[in-house]
Amino acid sequence: MGVKVYGPPTFTSTARVIAALEEMGADYEVVPIDFAAGEHKHPAHLARNPFGQVPAFEDGDLMLFESRAIARYVARKHKSSGPDLLREGNLQESAMVDLWLEVESQQYNPIISSIVYECLISPIYGGVPDRKLIDANVEKLGKLLDLYEDRLSKTKFLAGDFFSLADLNHMPYSQYFMATPHASLFESRPHVKAWWEDLSSRPAVRKTTAGMPKSG
Amino acid sequence: MGVKVYGPPTFTSTARVIAALEEMGADYEVVPIDFAAGEHKHPAHLARNPFGQVPAFEDGDLMLFESRAIARYVARKHKSSGPDLLREGNLQESAMVDLWLEVESQQYNPIISSIVYECLISPIYGGVPDRKLIDANVEKLGKLLDLYEDRLSKTKFLAGDFFSLADLNHMPYSQYFMATPHASLFESRPHVKAWWEDLSSRPAVRKTTAGMPKSG
Ligand SMILES: N[C@@H](CCC(=O)N[C@@H](CS)C(=O)NCC(=O)O)C(=O)O
Ligand SMILES: N[C@@H](CCC(=O)N[C@@H](CS)C(=O)NCC(=O)O)C(=O)O
Repeated sequence: MGVKVYGPPTFTSTARVIAALEEMGADYEVVPIDFAAGEHKHPAHLARNPFGQVPAFEDGDLMLFESRAIARYVARKHKSSGPDLLREGNLQESAMVDLWLEVESQQYNPIISSIVYECLISPIYGGVPDRKLIDANVEKLGKLLDLYEDRLSKTKFLAGDFFSLADLNHMPYSQYFMATPHASLFESRPHVKAWWEDLSSRPAVRKTTAGMPKSG
Repeated sequence: MGVKVYGPPTFTSTARVIAALEEMGADYEVVPIDFAAGEHKHPAHLARNPFGQVPAFEDGDLMLFESRAIARYVARKHKSSGPDLLREGNLQESAMVDLWLEVESQQYNPIISSIVYECLISPIYGGVPDRKLIDANVEKLGKLLDLYEDRLSKTKFLAGDFFSLADLNHMPYSQYFMATPHASLFESRPHVKAWWEDLSSRPAVRKTTAGMPKSG
């Protein structure tokens, strides 16, 4: 009855969960789901995740989906044996962690996922990248990263001078993004660049991103 | 140095924070922001919320934005004097709360906010509702509510047999949605209907929705 993560480990949402497990030093097993065979829409997988998406997560009797909820669970479960990624014992610090978790989920993810999709994923399926959409989102991402640059010039990590789940949740799409022609958006902002170098070189992150596209 | 919520109290994101404060029986003051005058993009407001959005939130020295992060903070701060909306002391229950908080944020919000925008908001500014977009999202919402119906046939609330922030965060857009011509999506699903009647009749919610559109 160990911990199981269902999903291709290089997919962004699955990678979010794996990175959290690696950070916390938790044991787990990855059960690949065969997207080409449509396994994510088969009844066995729909029973794990009614949206027919990955990841799904199993810890004994507990079945979960939604990568950000699973990552939070993993961080909370192992907080006494690993880094305290949520700071739920501290009202001010946990509020800043939650704030930047929300910025990732509500502001960063919609923009960066669209760029990654158009630049890297759509072409695999024979699609033609939508230039107008890419340009609009590159402009939005630049403005958003200006706010990150400002924040990261004041604190080493997003929520404060401590590494948290708010940083880690940015990892999967940022890793793919750095393999697009738009990586200069990170590289031209010194604090964002340093933050990403820090984040991407963490042993847990390197292990998670081993099979993912690399920048440059 | 009391608690201040900046934003028009009938706007969905502001209402999410006010509902949490009302549920927890907390004292607060609403500071209206004049959207018609562009006050949300003025430097004074950008210092509170760098996205130039509402709400912004102040509790003494602590300044926050992102409505879902603020609601979580309010719930955590007052958990010993009000209902336990997060269940962070219980690993299984908090995981289910987080899961359904994520479903609201990642799956429900993008769909329902688009319908509400097209049906109720866009016309105010002279826009013509985008029929195709509405139809596509009404179909998606129907499928999503089928999953809610299934879930709510097993547990009284989304996260379990207890009311939580996962239910409450659904309130603002649902309140507007029920004033669109598509309210039958809720009414035709008995468990969704009962859940919404329960949620919308809570004293804290009634107080929050007093100035909002009413259904039918
Ligand atoms: N909000 C979800 C998103 C999951 C998601 O979009 N997963 C993608 C792969 S990265 C998927 O399974 N797509 C298949 C589909 O949506 O049908 C989460 O964070 O877990
Ligand atoms: N994710 C944000 C969204 C806030 C938001 O979209 N607020 C709207 C009003 S409900 C706003 O201020 N819009 C003005 C703008 O985006 O310029 C939150 O939950 O606080």
